[in-house]
Amino acid sequence: MSQPAYVAVDWGTSSFRLWLVDRTGNVLAERRSQEGMTAAGRLGFPAVLQSHLDAVRAADGLPVIICGMAGARQGWVEAGYVDTPAPLASILKQAVAVPGQHRDIRILPGIAQRDPKAPDVMRGEETQLLGALGMDAAGDALVCMPGTHSKWVSAKRGTVERFATFMTGELFDVISRETILTHAVAGADDATDAEAFKSAVISAFETPANAANLLFQVRSGQLLHGGTPSSAREKISGTLIGLELAGGLAGQVPRNGITLVASGRLQMLYQLAFDTVAVPVRTIGAEDAVRRGLSMAAQSIWNV
Amino acid sequence: MSQPAYVAVDWGTSSFRLWLVDRTGNVLAERRSQEGMTAAGRLGFPAVLQSHLDAVRAADGLPVIICGMAGARQGWVEAGYVDTPAPLASILKQAVAVPGQHRDIRILPGIAQRDPKAPDVMRGEETQLLGALGMDAAGDALVCMPGTHSKWVSAKRGTVERFATFMTGELFDVISRETILTHAVAGADDATDAEAFKSAVISAFETPANAANLLFQVRSGQLLHGGTPSSAREKISGTLIGLELAGGLAGQVPRNGITLVASGRLQMLYQLAFDTVAVPVRTIGAEDAVRRGLSMAAQSIWNV
Repeated sequence: MSQPAYVAVDWGTSSFRLWLVDRTGNVLAERRSQEGMTAAGRLGFPAVLQSHLDAVRAADGLPVIICGMAGARQGWVEAGYVDTPAPLASILKQAVAVPGQHRDIRILPGIAQRDPKAPDVMRGEETQLLGALGMDAAGDALVCMPGTHSKWVSAKRGTVERFATFMTGELFDVISRETILTHAVAGADDATDAEAFKSAVISAFETPANAANLLFQVRSGQLLHGGTPSSAREKISGTLIGLELAGGLAGQVPRNGITLVASGRLQMLYQLAFDTVAVPVRTIGAEDAVRRGLSMAAQSIWNV
Repeated sequence: MSQPAYVAVDWGTSSFRLWLVDRTGNVLAERRSQEGMTAAGRLGFPAVLQSHLDAVRAADGLPVIICGMAGARQGWVEAGYVDTPAPLASILKQAVAVPGQHRDIRILPGIAQRDPKAPDVMRGEETQLLGALGMDAAGDALVCMPGTHSKWVSAKRGTVERFATFMTGELFDVISRETILTHAVAGADDATDAEAFKSAVISAFETPANAANLLFQVRSGQLLHGGTPSSAREKISGTLIGLELAGGLAGQVPRNGITLVASGRLQMLYQLAFDTVAVPVRTIGAEDAVRRGLSMAAQSIWNV
C-alpha cells in the first residue's frame, strides 16, 4: 500500500470532509461528519480535526490543507480573501498557516468581489473552481455551482473575473419549511415530478418578476386543482432554480455552454433545468472538484 | 347616542377585528385581538366571537357580518368562492349563514381564479376591494393591496377580472428570521433608511431575475463595506417590494395610476416604492376599506 502524503479537508458551514491522500492523489481513507463550522465553533476546531486525524491514523508530521468556512472570521483562523479579478493560482499563494500546531496546517483564502454595486464573497468554492478548471485553463468559462448559496462564476484564462451568489438552496429550504407552502409539501416523498419541475423552471425563467407570485400558485393551484405534495415541492424547486438561471445567464448563453459543478440530486435537478431552457452543459462532480483543488494546493505548497 | 345596527368582523389568519356599527355606518365600539383563524381554531370560533360581543354589549338580535379566513375550509363555516370574472356585488349575494346561532351571522365568500395557468385565491381582500372601489366603480383600476400575501387586482366597472398574489410579506419575514441574512439584520431598530430601500427597489425592479442574488448582497455588502442592521432590513424589504412591483406592473403603468390599499408602515413603504419607480398612486386606508365593504354587505343583506 502507498504511503499517505497529506490530509485534505473541505470544512463547510454544516459539513466536514477529510481525505488521507498519497503522492499520486489517490484517496487512502475518508471521513465525513456534520462537524461543520457551526458545530466546530462549539467543540473547538483543533479537537474536531484531531479526532478525525486519529481515526485515519495520520502520522504526526503529515501536513493538512483546508478550504472552506474554517477560514472565515467566525472560523478557526481567518484566511482572508483574494480580490477579483482573482487568478486561481494566487489562492495557493495566500494560504494561511494555523499557528501553534504539531503539524503544518494551512487554510486557503476565499475570493471577494469588492465592487460596491455587486459585493460578493465565496469560501470553499474557489477550491472547487481550481479543481474544476485547473490553474491555467484556456479560454472563457461560465461556471454554475449550485448549493445553499449557488455561485455563478465568469472565469477567463484561469482568473475569476466576476461572480454572483444566489440564495437558491436556502430560499428553497425556508420556503418549504416555514411558510404557507409548508402545508402544500407536507408528506412529500422522494418521487420526482419532472413535468411539474420543468414547467416551473420555464415560468420563472421567462417571467422572473413573477417569482413571488409563482410560489404562491403552488398553494392556490393545489387548493383549486389538486396535486401531490411531491409535485408541489418540485414546483417550488423549479421556480427558484428557473429564477436563478434567468439571473445567472442574464439573457446570454456562452458559446461553449455552461460548466456545472454539482453532485447527486442537485446535479440531476440543474442538468434538467439547463436542458429545459436549452443550454448545453458540461458537468463536473462537486466532490471530485474540491478534492482535486485541494491536491493542487498541497502539491504547490509542499511539493508532495 | 345612536343605536347599534349590526356587528362587522374582519377575521384574518392571525388577527381579529370587530366593530359595533350604527345605521349610518358610525363605529360605536371596537375590539382587536390576536384570535385569528389559527387561534380561533383551537379556542372555538363561537366562543371567541361571543366573548367580543359580550365585551361590546351587542344585544342578542344584532346581526353579524364577517369576512376573511373564518370562511376558509379550515375556518368556521366554509363560505366558498366567487369565480373570476367576479362582480363585487355578487360577493354580497353569496354570503353564507352560520347555522344554529342565536343571531343572524353571515360570512362573505372569497374570490377564486381557476385559470390552470394562474390559479389564485383571495379571502378578505374582496371585501376591502368592495370598500375601496364601490360596487359600480366606473372605469378600470389596478389595485395593489400589500401584506403577508400581497394582492394585485385588475378591476373593470366593479368586476374583478384578474388578480395575482405575491408572497412578499411572508418572504420578508422568513428571510429576515431564518436565513444567513438574520445575522445582517440582528439588532435593527426602527430607523428607516430610505436611500437603502429605494436603491434596493430600483435594482430588483430593473433586474428581477437577480432577486436571489440581490438578497445575498445584503450579507456580502455588510461583510465587505459595513452598514447598519436597519439598512440591511430596508434592503431586504426594498428588494422584495421592487420584485413585486416588477411583477405586478408587468412593464405597464395604467393611465390613471395605481390604487394602493394599505395602512401604517406598509402604506409608507409601498408609497415610497411607487414614487421611486415613478408610478402615480392613489391611497386608501386598508382598515377603512374593509369596514366600508362590510357596511355595504350589511346594508345590502339586512337593509340596516
